[in-house]
Amino acid sequence: MVFFERAVIVGVGLLGGSVGKALRNRTLAKTVVGCGRSAQRLEQAQEAQAIDQGESELTAAAQDADLVVVCTPVKEIVHAVEQCAKVVAPHALITDVGSTKAEIVRQLSGCRFFCGAHPLAGSEKSGVQFSDSRLFEGRTVVLTPANETPREKVEQNDRFWKSMGGITVEMDAQTHDAAVAATSHLPHLLAAALAGATDRDLLSLTASGWQDTTRVAAGNVEMWLQIVDDNREPILQALRSFGGTLDIWIDAIANRDRGQLQALLVEAKQIRDSVGN
Amino acid sequence: MVFFERAVIVGVGLLGGSVGKALRNRTLAKTVVGCGRSAQRLEQAQEAQAIDQGESELTAAAQDADLVVVCTPVKEIVHAVEQCAKVVAPHALITDVGSTKAEIVRQLSGCRFFCGAHPLAGSEKSGVQFSDSRLFEGRTVVLTPANETPREKVEQNDRFWKSMGGITVEMDAQTHDAAVAATSHLPHLLAAALAGATDRDLLSLTASGWQDTTRVAAGNVEMWLQIVDDNREPILQALRSFGGTLDIWIDAIANRDRGQLQALLVEAKQIRDSVGN
Repeated sequence: MVFFERAVIVGVGLLGGSVGKALRNRTLAKTVVGCGRSAQRLEQAQEAQAIDQGESELTAAAQDADLVVVCTPVKEIVHAVEQCAKVVAPHALITDVGSTKAEIVRQLSGCRFFCGAHPLAGSEKSGVQFSDSRLFEGRTVVLTPANETPREKVEQNDRFWKSMGGITVEMDAQTHDAAVAATSHLPHLLAAALAGATDRDLLSLTASGWQDTTRVAAGNVEMWLQIVDDNREPILQALRSFGGTLDIWIDAIANRDRGQLQALLVEAKQIRDSVGN
Repeated sequence: MVFFERAVIVGVGLLGGSVGKALRNRTLAKTVVGCGRSAQRLEQAQEAQAIDQGESELTAAAQDADLVVVCTPVKEIVHAVEQCAKVVAPHALITDVGSTKAEIVRQLSGCRFFCGAHPLAGSEKSGVQFSDSRLFEGRTVVLTPANETPREKVEQNDRFWKSMGGITVEMDAQTHDAAVAATSHLPHLLAAALAGATDRDLLSLTASGWQDTTRVAAGNVEMWLQIVDDNREPILQALRSFGGTLDIWIDAIANRDRGQLQALLVEAKQIRDSVGN
């Protein structure tokens, strides 16, 4: 059951490596080609069995490919897709894993091969050494077609991400970006703000609560600078809205309003419990 | 190497059960008595091998005991210690695991048996079924003697918590409370505020970032109401200070000040990386 003759992964890190491993382990592609600028990292990816072969030149890698998954930093996705679109096979699917979508989808709305995606999987870790063929299993994958995207391309993309084990959901790119500002970018920035505000002299007095709450602050700085740059307004709205939430908590505590604080804590616990893990 | 003839644990939940298991597994006590109001929970603790026997009546349990560890909710600690102090053996140590200390230490400053402690171990889970004999291993345990506490009682307490595997540090109760407001109570309240502010319709778009950052919001509501009640001013100060931190982040993002945002993210990552896990 080989779906793809030549699958190309542009950027073989945690996510790209996981796509490669899933393609290989599930025998979904005849050849998995990894593309990246660093020969050393391509070798690493090959050793990790995430790709069959490495190729440093993008158009050479994508030549006649029927699947391209762009897993580069967000800022490089549009250019990579445009380059690949020039040389891929006529029925090819080009998709990506970028965690912000509006700008990418807007710029690529005219590309008939492309349908954007955002698999909600990842980690504070980065690098192919942490990649995992099962990374996408049971994870939500948001598909963000443009209005102009052919329906069959959306369906092709849907089948691809389902073959990775993902649970697909289709969403307008702007709606997606506002949603992940609240569910992903806000948690990260809060975790970072909390970690950064902690007096180093007090770190020996931290326990699992601090550790869990700040864990994602260990994430890649450059990636987060790009995400903020790409999704600035929704992120600002999420941060300001959280500032308002914080004021409600502060008021409840300052006013010794036990009933209100209890209601806030119960609501928080119910929502957290409903997610599990 | 039996240290205690009769060790009494008042309140056999996650922490009390873990003390019991550590005492038993390391053969540090001849008899470990669990004390609590619920016969069912005492049976559970006995089945979990956290205690040798259960006793519902506090002074009966503590009679001639040479160790009492009070693991009740914070509000009940002072009363429990006072009751036990009437009946324990002359050389007994009474300690506790309360996560706020100033009020407890102030009220019990005249009790010659008592030296307060706060082991920085715990979980969003509660109940003896999650107790673990190794819970305190490698964890910081803050000892908070009053000025009046005899030095030999502090040393006895120090030996006890080291025998649990803890790394002890001595601190003034007020200093402790301000510190844990920043390192423990603030993270919890932020996690809860974030969980509570998340639109339920967006929960399918959460991933490990949201899950980590909100994990402790699943904690026991009543316990957190008591902690806030007990440590209100330091907590308010920590929350307000975090509000100021948040404004710095918002300004950096709104002003497109990439250098400032990068510096904030780098500082956060360095602090988080220095803690590990």
